[in-house]
Amino acid sequence: MNLTPSPFAPARFPDLPVVNGVRAATGSRGFYARRGMERDDMFLFVLDEGTACAGVYTVSNTASADVLWCREALEQGAGAARALVVNAGNSNAFTGPKGVLKNEATLKAMTETLGVPKETCFLAATGVIGEPLSDPNYVGMMVPELAGKLAPPDWEAAARAFMTTDTFPKGAGSTLDLDGTPVHFAGIAKGSGMIAPNMATMLSYVFTDAAIEPGLLQALLADITNQTFNSITVDGDTSTSDTLMVFATGASGMAPIRTPEDPRFEALADALHAVCQDLSHLIVKDGEGASKFVTITVKGAVSSQSAKVIASEIANSPLIKTAMAAGDANWGRVVMAVGKSLEPIRMDQLSIWFDDVLVAENGSRAENYSEAAASAVFAQPEFTICVDAGVGDQSHTVWTCDLTHAYVDINGAYRT
Amino acid sequence: MNLTPSPFAPARFPDLPVVNGVRAATGSRGFYARRGMERDDMFLFVLDEGTACAGVYTVSNTASADVLWCREALEQGAGAARALVVNAGNSNAFTGPKGVLKNEATLKAMTETLGVPKETCFLAATGVIGEPLSDPNYVGMMVPELAGKLAPPDWEAAARAFMTTDTFPKGAGSTLDLDGTPVHFAGIAKGSGMIAPNMATMLSYVFTDAAIEPGLLQALLADITNQTFNSITVDGDTSTSDTLMVFATGASGMAPIRTPEDPRFEALADALHAVCQDLSHLIVKDGEGASKFVTITVKGAVSSQSAKVIASEIANSPLIKTAMAAGDANWGRVVMAVGKSLEPIRMDQLSIWFDDVLVAENGSRAENYSEAAASAVFAQPEFTICVDAGVGDQSHTVWTCDLTHAYVDINGAYRT
Repeated sequence: MNLTPSPFAPARFPDLPVVNGVRAATGSRGFYARRGMERDDMFLFVLDEGTACAGVYTVSNTASADVLWCREALEQGAGAARALVVNAGNSNAFTGPKGVLKNEATLKAMTETLGVPKETCFLAATGVIGEPLSDPNYVGMMVPELAGKLAPPDWEAAARAFMTTDTFPKGAGSTLDLDGTPVHFAGIAKGSGMIAPNMATMLSYVFTDAAIEPGLLQALLADITNQTFNSITVDGDTSTSDTLMVFATGASGMAPIRTPEDPRFEALADALHAVCQDLSHLIVKDGEGASKFVTITVKGAVSSQSAKVIASEIANSPLIKTAMAAGDANWGRVVMAVGKSLEPIRMDQLSIWFDDVLVAENGSRAENYSEAAASAVFAQPEFTICVDAGVGDQSHTVWTCDLTHAYVDINGAYRT
Repeated sequence: MNLTPSPFAPARFPDLPVVNGVRAATGSRGFYARRGMERDDMFLFVLDEGTACAGVYTVSNTASADVLWCREALEQGAGAARALVVNAGNSNAFTGPKGVLKNEATLKAMTETLGVPKETCFLAATGVIGEPLSDPNYVGMMVPELAGKLAPPDWEAAARAFMTTDTFPKGAGSTLDLDGTPVHFAGIAKGSGMIAPNMATMLSYVFTDAAIEPGLLQALLADITNQTFNSITVDGDTSTSDTLMVFATGASGMAPIRTPEDPRFEALADALHAVCQDLSHLIVKDGEGASKFVTITVKGAVSSQSAKVIASEIANSPLIKTAMAAGDANWGRVVMAVGKSLEPIRMDQLSIWFDDVLVAENGSRAENYSEAAASAVFAQPEFTICVDAGVGDQSHTVWTCDLTHAYVDINGAYRT
């Protein structure tokens, strides 16, 4: 299947900094070669001793064997990380005992080749669900070869190596000055469909040479995830493999941050938040078939969770998403989605804006409603839908894309 | 917009019986004439004195003014009904005080023209959400004309008069012998998109000359709705106007049924259930852009409610619905939907069938999995997806359709 690049594809992959303490290699195991595609389809990352990590994973009850292992390792290893192996082309989800055997073989190759403890080794896999691998060592057998060519990461090559229906590689990063110590961030993500995260979304890895205590990093990541990866949607479907991990090598030389009261914590949190936000937006912009990138803000709600539920109903409504695709400013469907959320609202106080165009207020169409002005907003590739629920002062923002013919095509042909 | 008829459109409208005690008339108020369409767009039903009724309505927090009135009337009138006015072309939802004025004017015309109490008069409206009517009496002014041509219902004409994006008129009915008294049922429904009922779906009216106490009829209808109208989905969106009402005129001459212990109650319940099931299936078969009609049964669940949640996740998943459209038997996506439901399951006991083809068992692909056999099922216009959750003995069935290019087209052009 040939995928048309997203109209939001960046002109080129961003320049990401060197993150001290991180080495990587990519390679091809042949998951795509059998479909006639020459491309890398797996990567290995190796992290310096002392690296702290944090992770959030899908809450799906049919989570992949890889996700189940990562949860276990994170607990057993108390947030220590040394290595990461990820493949695209087969998700190792719903593969039963065969899936566990594949993981055991891969972990054995990692511990023996790299000389690191098993509980510091992390895995992920993405691709078709339910196809068992013929040989448990299918992925593990590549580890020695990749270990032999470890180098400072080629971020773009790594980002390309775990793409599935993605039409462009996704990366974001920054450099931060923390009391005179330069600290670096680089992150990569993949994801295009089956995007309605519930804890995290698809696969994303962020690397930094900041030094931070693992428990604090985990708490920070959970908070950031709620505002970023857990606030995007493409199609309302939740992957069995969703994984977001942050690795902090500490190799910048800074003294470790151990409490949120540390004066450097806020700057670090902001930098990590920015990278996660960039990566999560790139996933929506590469949403399967996406031609519009839409920001949905709900304010005036009784709680930010309530605002998030309302915003998500708008962001996931097929009727609104097809209207976005057609550029039809059908604001009545926004009313419908607010109503079906069953969250507290006051209909006679409800207001709706498309960018800065007020289309509805106090429970009916705005007095000066202009179809032309509303349509002009929907004609843009990027715009905002804002709803005031009229019952409180809490808000939340969610990002989504439209539902186009291309989504129907891509998902009818995915396995072929 | 010209709509291609659904491939499931019946060759002709069914022959429905005469229901004693019911008269009707249809007419055109011009909602569609301004779009160049010559068609009836409203109807009036008048019911004999003594008619009992029951109703279920959308639970949306942005319910239409008509729905709010029907709830109030049902309570004030204690289940007595004399008249019903419904229009297509404008939903009177989110129209604020103007929507209430339109209802008051219509009710005034009904009570004055027909000489019946206000609380026995019911209303509904369907069409674009949020467009205020220019004149409060826009609908009411038609009542005298329609009252002048009341006659035993032309069921097909009535079913056509409240269509919106429907591609065929929907009717179902039957005749039942209750201890020697022939009792008649006839029902009509409209609905095609914004179908994910939560209490009822879109607009549907069932008429019978059975005699039954209103409270008993209401309890029966709630139970039937859960199994029929509340178990269908087209797009996961819930209308602001969903209404299902049953009118029992008692004009068959049978002695009234007053308790569920009445030996005739079960036969009547079965007959009403059958009509509601037929009508609800017709709505899915006319789902916007539908080319497949799919039955989703979940068994082995901890409760029938849990089974319903899992079945609904499968039925609403855009990834599964696009795979249905393409005839791609991508069973891994069924695993995904089961997982994201967050309902209790045992992954290592989970089994999936497409019709009678076992595709997954005990948490992985079936030993004798055949892609050809699975694909042959998905190539059919109608088939069943069955999931055993492996944790209990409760089940539920939901009906859905596929997600096609036509859905994207229809909903991009709806208001134009």
